[in-house]
Order: sequence, then C-alpha cells, then structure tokens
Amino acid sequence: MPQVAVIGSGAEHEAAAEEVGRLLAERDCTVVTGGGGEVMAAASRGAKAAGGTTIGILPGEDHGDANPWIDHVVVTGIGHARNLAVAASGAAVIAVGGSWGTMSEIGFARRLGRTVVILEPGLQLAGVARAETPAEAVELALAGIAGH
Amino acid sequence: MPQVAVIGSGAEHEAAAEEVGRLLAERDCTVVTGGGGEVMAAASRGAKAAGGTTIGILPGEDHGDANPWIDHVVVTGIGHARNLAVAASGAAVIAVGGSWGTMSEIGFARRLGRTVVILEPGLQLAGVARAETPAEAVELALAGIAGH
Amino acid sequence: MPQVAVIGSGAEHEAAAEEVGRLLAERDCTVVTGGGGEVMAAASRGAKAAGGTTIGILPGEDHGDANPWIDHVVVTGIGHARNLAVAASGAAVIAVGGSWGTMSEIGFARRLGRTVVILEPGLQLAGVARAETPAEAVELALAGIAGH
Amino acid sequence: MPQVAVIGSGAEHEAAAEEVGRLLAERDCTVVTGGGGEVMAAASRGAKAAGGTTIGILPGEDHGDANPWIDHVVVTGIGHARNLAVAASGAAVIAVGGSWGTMSEIGFARRLGRTVVILEPGLQLAGVARAETPAEAVELALAGIAGH
Repeated sequence: MPQVAVIGSGAEHEAAAEEVGRLLAERDCTVVTGGGGEVMAAASRGAKAAGGTTIGILPGEDHGDANPWIDHVVVTGIGHARNLAVAASGAAVIAVGGSWGTMSEIGFARRLGRTVVILEPGLQLAGVARAETPAEAVELALAGIAGH
Repeated sequence: MPQVAVIGSGAEHEAAAEEVGRLLAERDCTVVTGGGGEVMAAASRGAKAAGGTTIGILPGEDHGDANPWIDHVVVTGIGHARNLAVAASGAAVIAVGGSWGTMSEIGFARRLGRTVVILEPGLQLAGVARAETPAEAVELALAGIAGH
Repeated sequence: MPQVAVIGSGAEHEAAAEEVGRLLAERDCTVVTGGGGEVMAAASRGAKAAGGTTIGILPGEDHGDANPWIDHVVVTGIGHARNLAVAASGAAVIAVGGSWGTMSEIGFARRLGRTVVILEPGLQLAGVARAETPAEAVELALAGIAGH
Repeated sequence: MPQVAVIGSGAEHEAAAEEVGRLLAERDCTVVTGGGGEVMAAASRGAKAAGGTTIGILPGEDHGDANPWIDHVVVTGIGHARNLAVAASGAAVIAVGGSWGTMSEIGFARRLGRTVVILEPGLQLAGVARAETPAEAVELALAGIAGH
C-alpha cells in the first residue's frame, strides 16, 4: 500500500483534512501524519472511518502523545526534526492549511523529490502543485506516485 | 497492540531473531526494527510468518531500503540518529546480538525508561535484564510493559 | 558574540553572501552555516576575511566535509535534519538565494521565533522580512536580535 | 585545532572532568560537550580556565540552556539525538562518569570510528580504551587522533 503524508495545521481545515484522509483510505493508501492534533488528527480520523491504516510520527518521547486515530506510533524524540521523517515517509505529501512547520515539511519533501500538493486555501509557495478539492488533491498525489 | 522493538546485528543471530519476531506476533505485538538486514530482517520475517505486523524505521531517505518483510516504512533521513526513534518506539526492546549501534539503542532505551532485554549470547552491559531463550526474552519484555 | 546563521544556495549569490559574512564579522557576530559550498562557503569566507569566527553544522559524518573557512565543525550525521540545528543556532537568520532546503530552514527558524531576513533577490515567502542589500540584511538581523 | 568531545555525567566526576578540560586546552584542543551541567560544565570550565575554546551542542531549542563556559552554542532541537552530534564532532571522545546517555554516545562514537577513552572509574564496556588519570586520558585521545 502506498503511503501518503498529510501535513498542516489549523482547526478551520479539519473538515478538509478528514475528507482527504477518508479518500486516501478508500484508495488503499496508508495515511502518515505527525500524530498530533487538528489537521493531523482529522486526516487520521477520516482514514480510520473508511477502514484505513494510519501512522503517526511524533516529535516527543511518549507513545501517549499520539491522537486516538493512530494505529502505529513512531516515537522519534527529535522535536521539529521529525518533520523530515513525516515528509520523507510519504511517497507523496498533501498539505492542508499549515504554517511555518508545514513550510519546513514541504521544503524537505521537495528536496527529496516527493510529489507535494497544496489544498486550497493553503500556503503560498511557488513551484508546488495546488488542488481545489480534497478529491483533486488525492488524484494529484496518486498521479505523482504513479509517475515515479 | 503493544509495539516491541527488536534491535541488533550479526548473521549468526538471525535464527534467534526470527524466533523472537514469531513469538512477538503470536502475542499480538507489532514488531519495530530499523528496517535493515540480518537481525532486523529476521525478526520482521518471523513476525510476518506468524501473521504479525512490522514497522521499519530507516536511516536513509528511500522507501526501497527496507527489507521485504516491512509493512510500514518510516523514512527518517537522519542516519544513525534513527536509533533513538527505534528505541523510543518500542514499549519494550529486545536486543539480539549487536555491536556499537545496538549499544547506542540500549542506552537510549534505558534513558527513556523502556524495558530492555538482552538475549544470550549478547552485549555485556551491566544493569540490563538478560534472557536465555527467545521465549524468555519475550516474556520479560511483555512483563516489563505490563508493569508500567 | 551573537550568532547569525547565513543560509541559502546558488553560485550566483556567492558575492552577496560573502559581503553578508564580512559585514557580520565586522559587527562582531559569529557566522553559522551548514558548512558546505556556494552561499555557505562564501559567507564563511567573507567572515574570515574580516577576522571573524565561523561555525559549520554538517549533515554528514566527517569533519573533512567542511569548507576551508570553517573554524568550528559540528558533525551531526543527521542529513537534512541538520537544517533545524542551523536555523536554531542563529539568534537571527539571513537567507541568500536558496531553494527547497532553504525553505525548510526558514520554516524552522520562524517556528522557533527567530528573526529571518531574505536578501533580494530571494525566495518568495509571505511574512518574512526582506532586504535590498547585504548591509540592510545585517541591520535587520541585528535589530531583530536586539528587539528580543 | 583538533576537537575532542568530553561526555559523561555525575557531580562526583566534576573535578576529573575539569582537569580533562584544562589539559585539552593546554594541548590546543577545542573542547566539545553537550553544553549542560555536571561533567559537561566542568570540562568546559576547565578549558576556559586554561584559555581554551569550547563548543556546546544542546538538545533543546534555546541558546540560554548552555552552561556559562560555552563559547559557541549549537542549538539542535533534536533532544537526545544530539548525542550523535556530540560524539561525531569529536575527533576523539573522553568519557568521564556517565550513565545511559553516555553509553549511547560511546556507541555512536565507536560506530563512526572515533577514538574513545573511558576515564576510571567509568562505564564498564568491553572493547573501549581506559585511562587511570585525566593526563593519561588526554594522551590516549591525542594518540588516537594522530594515528588516523
């Protein structure tokens, strides 16, 4: 099963993130996130609602920090540097909302040659594909994986 | 499902590692390793043979570096520092054979308060529990998790 | 002595980076970089030409990877995740040219509350201060440090 | 100037660590530590008392976490994984006292081929050189560097 990372933040983006997670699970993708709240929790919740599998890559040192929708908890202990592992662990990356931490993940993902899709409304970054809807974001991510 | 990390190296320890992986899967534990060869591959192979689930936490930047028995590939890109994530991601840690890298993982695991069991013949480190057989190693690991 | 990180890449930006390094040294700042080539080497070269001190935070495992203008070599072994250490080790950060790796560093720097200045022409990122000249970039960086 | 890492912990080992730091500075070595207290602070204090230079590689995100005898502060933000950077940044490593974190650093240092010397009384680890006095520890460390 291909792994797709869903990154971002912002409570106002949770509904979109949940839809992205659900669609990825329906396409038999494992959803990788940073294991925390907001967009990360919503994407994982959506994936689980559709019977999918979720991985959470945590910044801290405790399994208990993961949100309740994480199946497999990776405890890195490396703080914000876990953003590299989140970005790298996706064959493609979908960004929903987000701020500076999300920007670091997009930078890493593109540095490693991963397909990145920003869901509207999202960060303004030149040279990154953009999608109008969760469905389009998932299609672009899967097309990017297939193209490799 | 509790996660147990199996760490170590050495081709001569593969049979023991495979047995540890098999027994962990039979006890409904997810097997976490560094995703590479020898002990890591053998423990994962044993877990899959028993119908279990495996996570591989890789040092490099490519999903393709994982051995064939890894279900979920975490690509960290942080080199030997991924040893911290391997140690931290197990609720308990079982060491099979091993050398300097294994020592770093045991140090991290104990620093974080994880239960660690060294399977004989193994590294000589004071203050770490030791087991004579794979079955005993798994029992001690699960007892350590239950005791928390 | 305050530490200022100079980040970025691109051979066409070396002259600007060298001027930034020189000006920082003249203002008694230690110059922190990722220790590699192009912008990193030029900023360090400029600092040394003005009698300054330089720190290089390398991604690899060998001291020999540092450019010749690094006084103090930090060997991290954590690959691109060393971008976090570069960004965090500056009380302020000046970006000269750059691409995806630079974006990850700016994301981290802002996530940690560091002052960031992009020297023109530079990455297009909303919400980051911009300077027209090396002298202005250094002034903005020092003003940001003083304001904390 | 060669860089030598001094690692370890334990208030009862501070006098020995200070002597190690002093001797290293007298031999024109830069002293690298994790930047914290006890052995790390004492080694740095000893180096500064002899006019030497010190680097502190911190686990956290704030420059202010460094002890007062650190000249150059590297802020990694990667928690215990900074132990890899400490070990790797020394051309040789001297261990004074210490516990599980120190064990992780020795494992990494040996994994990377660095010379390691344990000062008595120290961790019981097979295959690592041991020294009876701070002077002997420094001699062995410098001999290891020269032999490379």
